[in-house]
Amino acid sequence: MFSFESYIPTRVVFGPGKLNELTNIKLPGKKALICITEDQLMRKLGILDRVTALLDKIDIEYFIFDRVTPNPTRKGVMEASVEAKDKGCDFFIGLGGGSSIDTAKAAAIMMKNPGDLWEYASAGTGGGKAVEGAFPVVTITTTAGTGTECDPWCVITNERTNEKLDFGTEAVFPKVSIIDPELMLTLPRTLTLYQGFDALFHAIECYIANCAVELTNLYCLEAVSIVSKWLPVVAKDGGNLEARIQMSYAANVLCGFAQSLSATTSPHIIGQCMSGLYPNLAHGASLIVLAEEYYKKVVGFLPGMFDTLGKAMDESSKQDGTGKCFLDALIGLLNETEMRHLPMSGFGIPKGDIPEIARISKGIGFGFDRYELSIDDIIKILQKSYC
Amino acid sequence: MFSFESYIPTRVVFGPGKLNELTNIKLPGKKALICITEDQLMRKLGILDRVTALLDKIDIEYFIFDRVTPNPTRKGVMEASVEAKDKGCDFFIGLGGGSSIDTAKAAAIMMKNPGDLWEYASAGTGGGKAVEGAFPVVTITTTAGTGTECDPWCVITNERTNEKLDFGTEAVFPKVSIIDPELMLTLPRTLTLYQGFDALFHAIECYIANCAVELTNLYCLEAVSIVSKWLPVVAKDGGNLEARIQMSYAANVLCGFAQSLSATTSPHIIGQCMSGLYPNLAHGASLIVLAEEYYKKVVGFLPGMFDTLGKAMDESSKQDGTGKCFLDALIGLLNETEMRHLPMSGFGIPKGDIPEIARISKGIGFGFDRYELSIDDIIKILQKSYC
Repeated sequence: MFSFESYIPTRVVFGPGKLNELTNIKLPGKKALICITEDQLMRKLGILDRVTALLDKIDIEYFIFDRVTPNPTRKGVMEASVEAKDKGCDFFIGLGGGSSIDTAKAAAIMMKNPGDLWEYASAGTGGGKAVEGAFPVVTITTTAGTGTECDPWCVITNERTNEKLDFGTEAVFPKVSIIDPELMLTLPRTLTLYQGFDALFHAIECYIANCAVELTNLYCLEAVSIVSKWLPVVAKDGGNLEARIQMSYAANVLCGFAQSLSATTSPHIIGQCMSGLYPNLAHGASLIVLAEEYYKKVVGFLPGMFDTLGKAMDESSKQDGTGKCFLDALIGLLNETEMRHLPMSGFGIPKGDIPEIARISKGIGFGFDRYELSIDDIIKILQKSYC
Repeated sequence: MFSFESYIPTRVVFGPGKLNELTNIKLPGKKALICITEDQLMRKLGILDRVTALLDKIDIEYFIFDRVTPNPTRKGVMEASVEAKDKGCDFFIGLGGGSSIDTAKAAAIMMKNPGDLWEYASAGTGGGKAVEGAFPVVTITTTAGTGTECDPWCVITNERTNEKLDFGTEAVFPKVSIIDPELMLTLPRTLTLYQGFDALFHAIECYIANCAVELTNLYCLEAVSIVSKWLPVVAKDGGNLEARIQMSYAANVLCGFAQSLSATTSPHIIGQCMSGLYPNLAHGASLIVLAEEYYKKVVGFLPGMFDTLGKAMDESSKQDGTGKCFLDALIGLLNETEMRHLPMSGFGIPKGDIPEIARISKGIGFGFDRYELSIDDIIKILQKSYC
């Protein structure tokens, strides 16, 4: 007997060339703070110039905040909100991938809520205060991974405590989300794969989560099917527009919708914990390094669900009631994209830190899992994954 | 290379017993005009009393407008808006099926737009004026058919001209849509079937429409599959809650979403034209009477799409590249539910009026069809359908 609540008020404008629609959309303010990463990639690729030229056309003022870091920090968010206040901005544009967009979303919260961002974090050392509104956010996405374009979440790291936590509030649903797969054609291969696997794991986790509902299952299974088919294609040829469109549709739209109504599960908590401790570990990579051993451990808890996921990944696979077809398809995809056995050691994670990672992850909590993993279980998963 | 825009800002609260959530949801006003049908069914079933008791609990004032007719009229809409103005209401509650909800939506338009509703109709004798906003609308749905709960459309008949036209504006997306399948347990069998087929045809038409996109296909095929499976069940046993939930999910949620992003096609124009001329002809019935001959005529234009629809209706069916499996499944469903050969004559439609129906329908326009039907084609479809 199913029940659910669905609320996704974002206007999604999806398709190749759609960046140009920026001039035809009613924007939620007159003066924007545009958040981009400190690597200046948006400048180098000419995308920032395209965006500002379009804003000029419609008389929208803007200022650039170009100090967003990968695994964006509390400090960066606070700086962006101070900048927006100083300049009198009335909305934010997150331009780039998840880091820029999540910085924009979190800074938008700080425009209407006093004090420090961490007072509003609900886990770890967060103060658990309720968020009362946020400034409006527009997103222009250049990667196919996070889903933050269409969801009410932002993920920020506290550089003081090394915690990487999710902030979720309806106030930060983007007002407008422009998703133009043409902007993704030049993404490097490794980043494409990290993000593509991030999308795959969003879909898988939102499907097996204890808060999944029929509507999210629809989004998740379609996303799993699309990513399984198109990730190997885009890995071989990043300039394949059709593959970029498919990956973007799955990652940015379907997974964004799924994350708005369901939630990710323990692999995301463990992965985020590792990226919080080792900021060089990209989010997608943090999920890839533990995926094989994680799913080997849990597939037996939900064999029917993993059989269904296995079928979504490979329609010709055989469902035998054990979920083995899912493991086969996952390992196949990791092999095909040369992402199997991605070494944790390569990201500077010492093997000896594994118990601490397990302890912190478990401490944050695995509230959306349908099964219970102990600290020992996580240690074993990470130790088996370690290379 | 696909592109689309998705914007569905309605908060959908779905599930058995969810009517009680009315007290936990932030409503968009303090004084409601509740629109119900003149047959007083909402009073007789005790549903109005439940709603008003819940509103009392949260100190929301309300007035009842109980003069909504089936195939609701321009006149009824104008009366409801006058009533809302007189009483100082600041939002509407559409309680019941499509007639009540569409009256609420259209009256909400007239709270912010001067003059007569028909000045804002964009087809037929409508004035084509742009709608500037609307009062907020909350819907409480007691039927599984229209999808209006989750879409930006309302369908109103001009009792002076006998035109039945769609009004579409983002301003009338319901703010909150409570969909409680328990309220549908007592719907009579015939109404259930009319509405169930209405949902089926929404999904089919939104799938074959020239404005369909990947995202709407996902909603449509899932809805087609669910309705095909569960409509015969609910036809046999209207008290089957699981079947009511499934039908409601397909009709109210999936089809509502599909209609928000895609559109219905010529069968809806023809059916609405007939209901405009013969108000006793229920909307769902108007689609059923012409379905078999209509799809026999058009299946050859889009054989691949109809093969896919046939598979969604019956997974065991054989796709032979002609779309025949769809016709087989449709006729099977009409037979199984005893809706095949529903007689137009029984609704007082004279055979001699067929050319006029065809002429008016074609005059409204079939802008979302992927094929072109002439007035003669429509005459032939209706003549073959006539009994």
